Amino acid sequence: MQFKILEQAAQSTYAVIFDKGDEVIGGLRALAQEKNLGGAHFTAIGAFREATLGYFDRTTKQYKKIPVREQVEVLSLIGDIALANGAPQIHAHVVVGKSDGTAHGGHLLDARVWPTLEVILTESPRHLWRRTDAETGLALIDPQR
Amino acid sequence: MQFKILEQAAQSTYAVIFDKGDEVIGGLRALAQEKNLGGAHFTAIGAFREATLGYFDRTTKQYKKIPVREQVEVLSLIGDIALANGAPQIHAHVVVGKSDGTAHGGHLLDARVWPTLEVILTESPRHLWRRTDAETGLALIDPQR
Amino acid sequence: MQFKILEQAAQSTYAVIFDKGDEVIGGLRALAQEKNLGGAHFTAIGAFREATLGYFDRTTKQYKKIPVREQVEVLSLIGDIALANGAPQIHAHVVVGKSDGTAHGGHLLDARVWPTLEVILTESPRHLWRRTDAETGLALIDPQR
Repeated sequence: MQFKILEQAAQSTYAVIFDKGDEVIGGLRALAQEKNLGGAHFTAIGAFREATLGYFDRTTKQYKKIPVREQVEVLSLIGDIALANGAPQIHAHVVVGKSDGTAHGGHLLDARVWPTLEVILTESPRHLWRRTDAETGLALIDPQR
Repeated sequence: MQFKILEQAAQSTYAVIFDKGDEVIGGLRALAQEKNLGGAHFTAIGAFREATLGYFDRTTKQYKKIPVREQVEVLSLIGDIALANGAPQIHAHVVVGKSDGTAHGGHLLDARVWPTLEVILTESPRHLWRRTDAETGLALIDPQR
Repeated sequence: MQFKILEQAAQSTYAVIFDKGDEVIGGLRALAQEKNLGGAHFTAIGAFREATLGYFDRTTKQYKKIPVREQVEVLSLIGDIALANGAPQIHAHVVVGKSDGTAHGGHLLDARVWPTLEVILTESPRHLWRRTDAETGLALIDPQR
């Protein structure tokens, strides 16, 4: 994964380019830690050679895992970065397209890129914080902080 | 629904966070009226406990309603805000993911959030206006105005 | 296709509005050439009367064509513009929704708009360059240049 700053005034925009075999969530987390990103949002397109998607089950309060074990186009990857317990947390949802053109998707748990993933990420001067929601156990953004 | 301004120079960027049970289109419309948004665009991820999607039928010139009566991940919500007859109009399309990982979507008519919807909205200094298209009856953006 | 600049400081944001019958990739390429866009990204919603999607086949190293010969909602169109051999190249992935609410998608090869496509495009002051990847034959963004 490599990146290039496209603009840097009040907001900074990065082109973050993932290469063959790169893992997406770990790569974004490492960038966020290195660049101290705490109020960022991003969109991306590209392709994965495999991925694990999640669907939040209201009963178990856990993500049901949906494995994708084939080459898929990344039709849409939208997400944000906010701080949870002082560290940047990546939250991303993805839509992938299979060979037959059908679309599938979920919360992105992990993914291996092949051959590229092109992420446009914008970092804001003000940060966002998450707090744990008692009912779900999820870390939700608290806009009051 | 609550919000926080992330940046405010020529453009303003808002993080708009919807809470459990909040309705999306009404919430965005209320924000647009309060903040006088007339040239905005947004992306979002999160989850709905239910929603009504639309598909524009060329024959009837009406939106066919597609009810979604289950918990779904919001994989992608993309939209814009422009002025129609002097009031801000929300135009949003959504992709949702079901428990089996299949993706569905349409024009967003209404939706109830659970547990969160994280919207990043950017307002531009120049506004956009819609005019009614005679053939379809739809309010389309007129970039000449 | 028409456009309106929404903001112009370090970055320029355009609303690019496609009209009935306009072709999308050719229209974006013409705009990119006219305005010398070489480091841009965009999102869009609207509808197509027909489109051709692509799925990159790892074996043949070609895009398998997936024709869509019906009216579909454009649920998500995400893409970027970078320079390849000195000319702007459009890279866009799309998710479309059919009458039954199912979502489909792929790499966007071509599409005819009906009745509108609303594109929000942001051009950065720094450009991006593509280089041909020997293994796939694809022009991938090189963030080092």
